[in-house]
Amino acid sequence: MPKPQAIEYANASPAVREIFDDIKATRKVDDVNNVWKYLANDLPLLRRTWAGVKEVMGPGVLDPVVKEMLYLAVSITNNCGYCVASHSAGAYKAGMTDAMFGELMSIVGMANETNRLVTGYRVPIDPMFEQ
Amino acid sequence: MPKPQAIEYANASPAVREIFDDIKATRKVDDVNNVWKYLANDLPLLRRTWAGVKEVMGPGVLDPVVKEMLYLAVSITNNCGYCVASHSAGAYKAGMTDAMFGELMSIVGMANETNRLVTGYRVPIDPMFEQ
Amino acid sequence: MPKPQAIEYANASPAVREIFDDIKATRKVDDVNNVWKYLANDLPLLRRTWAGVKEVMGPGVLDPVVKEMLYLAVSITNNCGYCVASHSAGAYKAGMTDAMFGELMSIVGMANETNRLVTGYRVPIDPMFEQ
Amino acid sequence: MPKPQAIEYANASPAVREIFDDIKATRKVDDVNNVWKYLANDLPLLRRTWAGVKEVMGPGVLDPVVKEMLYLAVSITNNCGYCVASHSAGAYKAGMTDAMFGELMSIVGMANETNRLVTGYRVPIDPMFEQ
Amino acid sequence: MPKPQAIEYANASPAVREIFDDIKATRKVDDVNNVWKYLANDLPLLRRTWAGVKEVMGPGVLDPVVKEMLYLAVSITNNCGYCVASHSAGAYKAGMTDAMFGELMSIVGMANETNRLVTGYRVPIDPMFEQ
Amino acid sequence: MPKPQAIEYANASPAVREIFDDIKATRKVDDVNNVWKYLANDLPLLRRTWAGVKEVMGPGVLDPVVKEMLYLAVSITNNCGYCVASHSAGAYKAGMTDAMFGELMSIVGMANETNRLVTGYRVPIDPMFEQ
Repeated sequence: MPKPQAIEYANASPAVREIFDDIKATRKVDDVNNVWKYLANDLPLLRRTWAGVKEVMGPGVLDPVVKEMLYLAVSITNNCGYCVASHSAGAYKAGMTDAMFGELMSIVGMANETNRLVTGYRVPIDPMFEQ
Repeated sequence: MPKPQAIEYANASPAVREIFDDIKATRKVDDVNNVWKYLANDLPLLRRTWAGVKEVMGPGVLDPVVKEMLYLAVSITNNCGYCVASHSAGAYKAGMTDAMFGELMSIVGMANETNRLVTGYRVPIDPMFEQ
Repeated sequence: MPKPQAIEYANASPAVREIFDDIKATRKVDDVNNVWKYLANDLPLLRRTWAGVKEVMGPGVLDPVVKEMLYLAVSITNNCGYCVASHSAGAYKAGMTDAMFGELMSIVGMANETNRLVTGYRVPIDPMFEQ
Repeated sequence: MPKPQAIEYANASPAVREIFDDIKATRKVDDVNNVWKYLANDLPLLRRTWAGVKEVMGPGVLDPVVKEMLYLAVSITNNCGYCVASHSAGAYKAGMTDAMFGELMSIVGMANETNRLVTGYRVPIDPMFEQ
Repeated sequence: MPKPQAIEYANASPAVREIFDDIKATRKVDDVNNVWKYLANDLPLLRRTWAGVKEVMGPGVLDPVVKEMLYLAVSITNNCGYCVASHSAGAYKAGMTDAMFGELMSIVGMANETNRLVTGYRVPIDPMFEQ
Repeated sequence: MPKPQAIEYANASPAVREIFDDIKATRKVDDVNNVWKYLANDLPLLRRTWAGVKEVMGPGVLDPVVKEMLYLAVSITNNCGYCVASHSAGAYKAGMTDAMFGELMSIVGMANETNRLVTGYRVPIDPMFEQ
């Protein structure tokens, strides 16, 4: 039975429940998203991933909505359907407007285009960028 | 001779020079970067790309430094060396600090990691993200 | 009608049936997976792909479960849903346990993260790796 | 000593030399490109890869220049520097002009852009494409 | 409500309708595809994308079917489901036959394979490709 | 000055030196690789990345050489030059032979090929893989 299954709170071990509780408290939500229920299949992976996300997406020098938009831009570039859905929601929740999303999409599209133009034309790095 | 060559201003056609002039005026620089000198090998491509970049990266609802950071995040994810070099410079010029770059790198790294965790665990999209 | 269709054994040409028979005999299965039924739309492609997979995934110096795990790691990185599903099954069949899958996922996630950290920080190759 | 080394004809085994001879005869060249000299480190891989390339890039329904351009478009999208260099050369040799290369670049850039727009906007497949 | 919605003609602004009308007239179709209905959420993005696609995919030195096949090859490499579906349809409409599609698939598969072989063996660019 | 610089031990803060010392002790090496010297530009990122790599690549159910080969397979697929160089070295150090590397390369190449064949032919997941 190779298909991974979600670990629901009711069936989770105490160690997993502790992490789920921290996610719910940190994010002020009633239940954790599917990604956490699946990562719960491997406790060290769940623990390390949540600790990392909590640290990286927590308070810092960047505005929370900027952080979510960067996460979303990468997820779109990687063509990850789940990640686009969840981080779109995260970005809107953090204050992204439709106009901001439109500009984000424009930049993501343009960057993916020009990244290939540079590769195809084999453009050498300008000396000023090497200093 | 399949290797593309840079078109320098001195050797450029009037149509290319006009675009180079607009780039220099818009960006307040003395010379255009290599990417434009290579795209100049194909006039319609140069014209369309510059018009697109000018519109997308010009004034809008997002702060210029956020725009450059989104461009950089995509370029890193795509592993484009030239683009990482040029858009790092662009982001620093627009006001990115070392601490902001460190957070950007943390998010880009984390997103690339969790994008694959979601794919490998075949996580279904939460119904709340589908509305 | 651009959407490709599966070629079922009952409707297959003798040349396709011969390959399907070899797949079934080699893998000791009653029917071939969908991927082969679709590749059957192009006989040379089906023949070359099966010959390659048979040779590459057959007996060699690496353990069969390691081979399947490498295939799976690449498929996750490429975000190929079908491939993740089929090679997860293949890896479990070859002896992968849940703990092994958890470690594989940890490594795949970590590698995708550090690959981008290296790109974003433009890390030069250590001289000792160039020898 | 982990860095792979080129296998030159003078140092190659008879089995490798036979494949090198076939490459040189098929392509009417005096020496094989670096890619073959490196693949020669693993005889089954060299043999299978050359057999595949010879079959796929040999006479078929598509014009040779179209085949090389498709190979080049994929190589640019994957950001493979060696592959862009060698398949640019291959495409020019097969008849690609600068204008054709410019159009190829425009399409490759545009496709990489719109691929992400579709992902970011989560566009559902039109029913007419599913038939 | 973060999930983007399609903008149907009946609910579109005059500016969007004008673009939809141009798409329908240019392509001689009764309705625009979903991608345009979603891009219509951001007028500048819709306008710029359609102008770019119209110019790039319009008459040029490459045959229309070759253009569509290049678009399709990139979309397959990027694993974009919507794009594979829509550009398969576009290529068939422009004259691609099943045999041509089979050769395209063979080349796309082979290029994705050899791109990685070159990377893994760290093959240096042949001097003749650098001129 | 946007180009990141290596932080050498002599110029490192006590907190960075502590991590460098742990890397050197864990790996029994005299100096840390470049990747760590660049990540040292952002202390939280350095700390989290080393803690993650130490945990993931440390003792577990998979053989160390298998772990390094999985890391290498992902790095090749992502076309990360530095990562291919450093993890090739790591895999050889952990016991990978030339024959094992040849099989790894064969699988990585084959997986990248078949991943696209599946995408291009739009192969639906077999029901048996969904359970």
